Amino acid sequence: MILNGCGHLDGSEIHEAVMTLLAIDRNECSYTVFAPDAPQYHVMNHLTRQPMEGSRNMMVEAARIARGDVHELSTYNPADFDALMLPGGFGVAKNLFTYAFDGPNAKVMDAVRKAIVDTHAAGKPIGALCISPVLVAKVLGDVTVTVGTDAATSQDVEAMGAATVNTQITEVISDKKNMIFSTPCYMLPASISDIAESAENLVETMLEYM
Amino acid sequence: MILNGCGHLDGSEIHEAVMTLLAIDRNECSYTVFAPDAPQYHVMNHLTRQPMEGSRNMMVEAARIARGDVHELSTYNPADFDALMLPGGFGVAKNLFTYAFDGPNAKVMDAVRKAIVDTHAAGKPIGALCISPVLVAKVLGDVTVTVGTDAATSQDVEAMGAATVNTQITEVISDKKNMIFSTPCYMLPASISDIAESAENLVETMLEYM
Repeated sequence: MILNGCGHLDGSEIHEAVMTLLAIDRNECSYTVFAPDAPQYHVMNHLTRQPMEGSRNMMVEAARIARGDVHELSTYNPADFDALMLPGGFGVAKNLFTYAFDGPNAKVMDAVRKAIVDTHAAGKPIGALCISPVLVAKVLGDVTVTVGTDAATSQDVEAMGAATVNTQITEVISDKKNMIFSTPCYMLPASISDIAESAENLVETMLEYM
Repeated sequence: MILNGCGHLDGSEIHEAVMTLLAIDRNECSYTVFAPDAPQYHVMNHLTRQPMEGSRNMMVEAARIARGDVHELSTYNPADFDALMLPGGFGVAKNLFTYAFDGPNAKVMDAVRKAIVDTHAAGKPIGALCISPVLVAKVLGDVTVTVGTDAATSQDVEAMGAATVNTQITEVISDKKNMIFSTPCYMLPASISDIAESAENLVETMLEYM
């Protein structure tokens, strides 16, 4: 799993990350968490939704979610794992690639691009939640993903050369040819139970193809 | 629910908080999150487990877990709610009371004491996870709680005038007379699935008595 901090406005969405860890563990699989050893784009006050002072490191903050056990992203090798999981949060679109600022012309962090390209080249599945399907589309181009029902985001994904499918909450879209699995989570209005069910559906769907 | 930041070494334990929110929602109940509008005791690097520079506000950081919707703790009125939930994390013993430093002689933050005393006086149930049963024992004295199997912590709780019962992971101890319900969570070696099951067991046990 790749995280990029701790909190949906400047890092990884906590519910999506935690529910995905839970779904992995409940399916008797194990997980290793990775994050870039670099500063977040910025720090957001999650109460006021305004930027606040200071700088936070993606790996250090991700360790809050992972209870300390986070590895530097450049050490990720798909040969060691069966699948790659990408929870969402607005931080994905600020830290891992620049979609929040540059739209379809977003730049992707090198280690993130390498993780996705190498996993895909190894024929291993990638699970993407919330905004992360946009990241996968930007890196791989000709894949099929869902971003829920958001027309503007879907247009952007299509401008990246990928196809989108509208979904309702908890649904998973399976691009079996490319082994890309995606679910909208907080791209749609969702309860915390919806996020848990989405993560379960995603992990169980991926396991069917593994 | 009372939180005190975001991260088990200096605030609220994220898995325990999120799994309790999930259990509440899955049982078709709703939740409101409260936290003190005050600085955490300190900020810990969760990767190195060492203190780091800076100051973080409990309410602002708790908003990462609650996706923004956090109320100031002094506005909590048990008349508005059916139960009070206290997830754990080492931050409870640093921020909400001083157990980490003062042991059985810990001082309790006024608003925290009032929340627990008023809820108890109203005859409403309190659910406490991980280290939080020690806080409830410190405030209420003559109650029965669990802290897992930790002998030193149990001794401290007994020095506060409370009784302890050893438990295995996911077990809930019900003090029906006082309506105090507790479960050990990360006071014992636990997987994330164990935490989810503990929170489910706690919420479902409380609902039986409500």
